[in-house]
Amino acid sequence: MTDFQTPRGTRDFLPKDALKRQIVLEKIRRIFELWGFDPLETPAFEEWRLLAAKSGGGEAIREEVYYFKDKSERELGLRFDLTVPTARVVAINPNIPKPFKRYQIGNVWRYDRPGAGRYREFTQADIDIFGSSMIDADALVVGVACNCLYELGFKDFIVRLNSRKLIEKIVLSIGVEQEKVIDIFRSIDKLEKIGEDGVRDELQKKGFELSVIKNVLKLISFNLDTLKSKGFIEDIQKLEDIVEKVKDFGYDNVKIDISLVRGLEYYTDSVFEVILPENKALTITAGGRYDNLIEVYGGKSTPAVGISLGIDRIIFVMEERNMFNEKETNARMFLVSIGDSSKVNRQVIRLSSLLRKIGIPNEYDIMSRSLSKQLDYINTKNIPYAIIVGEKELDRNVVKLKDMKSGEEQELSIAGFEKEIGKLVD
Amino acid sequence: MTDFQTPRGTRDFLPKDALKRQIVLEKIRRIFELWGFDPLETPAFEEWRLLAAKSGGGEAIREEVYYFKDKSERELGLRFDLTVPTARVVAINPNIPKPFKRYQIGNVWRYDRPGAGRYREFTQADIDIFGSSMIDADALVVGVACNCLYELGFKDFIVRLNSRKLIEKIVLSIGVEQEKVIDIFRSIDKLEKIGEDGVRDELQKKGFELSVIKNVLKLISFNLDTLKSKGFIEDIQKLEDIVEKVKDFGYDNVKIDISLVRGLEYYTDSVFEVILPENKALTITAGGRYDNLIEVYGGKSTPAVGISLGIDRIIFVMEERNMFNEKETNARMFLVSIGDSSKVNRQVIRLSSLLRKIGIPNEYDIMSRSLSKQLDYINTKNIPYAIIVGEKELDRNVVKLKDMKSGEEQELSIAGFEKEIGKLVD
Repeated sequence: MTDFQTPRGTRDFLPKDALKRQIVLEKIRRIFELWGFDPLETPAFEEWRLLAAKSGGGEAIREEVYYFKDKSERELGLRFDLTVPTARVVAINPNIPKPFKRYQIGNVWRYDRPGAGRYREFTQADIDIFGSSMIDADALVVGVACNCLYELGFKDFIVRLNSRKLIEKIVLSIGVEQEKVIDIFRSIDKLEKIGEDGVRDELQKKGFELSVIKNVLKLISFNLDTLKSKGFIEDIQKLEDIVEKVKDFGYDNVKIDISLVRGLEYYTDSVFEVILPENKALTITAGGRYDNLIEVYGGKSTPAVGISLGIDRIIFVMEERNMFNEKETNARMFLVSIGDSSKVNRQVIRLSSLLRKIGIPNEYDIMSRSLSKQLDYINTKNIPYAIIVGEKELDRNVVKLKDMKSGEEQELSIAGFEKEIGKLVD
Repeated sequence: MTDFQTPRGTRDFLPKDALKRQIVLEKIRRIFELWGFDPLETPAFEEWRLLAAKSGGGEAIREEVYYFKDKSERELGLRFDLTVPTARVVAINPNIPKPFKRYQIGNVWRYDRPGAGRYREFTQADIDIFGSSMIDADALVVGVACNCLYELGFKDFIVRLNSRKLIEKIVLSIGVEQEKVIDIFRSIDKLEKIGEDGVRDELQKKGFELSVIKNVLKLISFNLDTLKSKGFIEDIQKLEDIVEKVKDFGYDNVKIDISLVRGLEYYTDSVFEVILPENKALTITAGGRYDNLIEVYGGKSTPAVGISLGIDRIIFVMEERNMFNEKETNARMFLVSIGDSSKVNRQVIRLSSLLRKIGIPNEYDIMSRSLSKQLDYINTKNIPYAIIVGEKELDRNVVKLKDMKSGEEQELSIAGFEKEIGKLVD
């Protein structure tokens, strides 16, 4: 037996799983295009100094990059997301017409601890808008993500929405120094996972005074009206406008949530993440506004906002929830040859080609198998229909169509095959 | 200005080029599926010892692998083709139903010298069949490749077909020792590039006797009938059967060519490559039979045959030949807002959603631009239609449809919009 395997944290997708991924990605791609997003592709690896730039993924992600050198000692790394490469593209192509609305669907790699729905190679489907600082752009990317999730069959997701600017103002308002804001954010970010007590402990360990901690926790638990009355009205209004605009698209899943913190070195204003009721710690989609990144990479100052659908997590949940119509193969029909005469073989080749012409994926025997072995194969692969081609039938200018599920058989004239076959099957 | 760039030998595909790639890959994927092939996905990187196994790509390719270690010192490498990973999948999953007909479309990486149509990151679209030793399988993969190339618009390609077994027998028949056969092959392989004189010089430098070299060059220039009369009838018959079977699919592009040598450590029997008349040194598609590889990776002995379409080279030629209907964007319509009233904005959002519902990709303004700036954007991106939404028109319950090419305008009632719009555009 072989001892080769996939590298830790990576997977093969055999046809059954690859077909599921294809269904999900095709739906998403189609929706991205309907909303006027165009495709972009970037290399799997980038210059290391780009990936390591502090403003990109932040310290934690940089630790997770697969690093290597090419044979000319150039330092490279596998991309850890699709945003950093796209921001590079925008920086080095200043004349791309704005707004630049691109989508990218591709794999990214992080040397992370593998776990349920967590892999070292995973797929992201991203849309980003460059050039618009209006909240219409924020609402648009959130709306597209909602459209994708609905179309995949999710109705009960929640989009948590917050503003990094707003919570920065809140934290500063209680006397925390600017350079410690990020420290506070890092702990607040864990609220969902470790609870209020956990956050309190962590902030204490970081050396914050108990009064400050108490104030932080109090402020982020205030409702919006209270916060408005405390002077944060403008930023909250902006968030409420985003909620309204997404509602105009037909989605009322967006909830403002002051405790949401994400992408600390990265986002500059709105931030959002999508969770499901059964597991609030599993973010299936996330994004936000990052108006500084293009400039950091040496480009012209360019407002930017985007969202990323975590395909592996989405599929993980869809499997848990049994949301797939599973199939083993694309083939809808198998042409069974009885006997090995050239008359039968040529007819099989001809009918297979006719089926392709009318768009029906099909297979035929290429192993000189007996009738019963061919039927075994059809059953193993769950192919819905068999077309049985035998010399006796050919003498009468017919073939047999067999519905493998019901077992029903019927004869079909060869002359009328092309016209009739499409009507006889689902 | 930024000094970041794509790593040497890699490229970004901006929307215009990404759209071309999408058209090509979608056509190919669809054809693969019609012929009963199912998708498979494998990781971008593999264990180094798998990629370095001698039987895989051969010495030359091994030198070109991007090698790295993960943070646990595991030795890894980026895949250099899709065949080696798939052969691993077949080796470690002995119970996959046979024949296993899979396709895989994905990027591979080789630290090669970049050049025209040659990149360090490039895309392959492969089909392989595992489990059938019959020439029906060889003919099938060649037939599918022909189908793809025809469908993309190529009519004048030539499939060169040879048998590694046959030329091995020929070379052995003139007294070359088994262990030197590969050396001879390596030189014959360059016949197209360096000519007969070049091959002669190279073989002389390798220390072969002049009489042997003469015989080799004579034998590979013989026509098939002469070779048949010299005792190689069985292997030539097999090749002729493949040619006939591909003809049954409707393609007469296959030519037996005794001078074709490929994939020395790799292929065991039939080998094929597709070239175009204008550049015989540029292989756009290639494959062959490799019945030993699964066993070498520790799997059960499994016959295998496959073919790989070189997507970047195919697109390179399609561009040279002007075979694309270029477009800048997927969007078919842009909804122009006149003024900034909420009445106009809401109607734009509503009509955009109606257009998506009937499958028309569209955009609308998210930058509060003036009418003329919106029209500039439409022209820059070559969006074919504008729908102009203004307050005055809305008061009369109409919008204006403008054909951007002809300049023609017509009014459309809002009530009939959903029903009419599809009929009014190409």
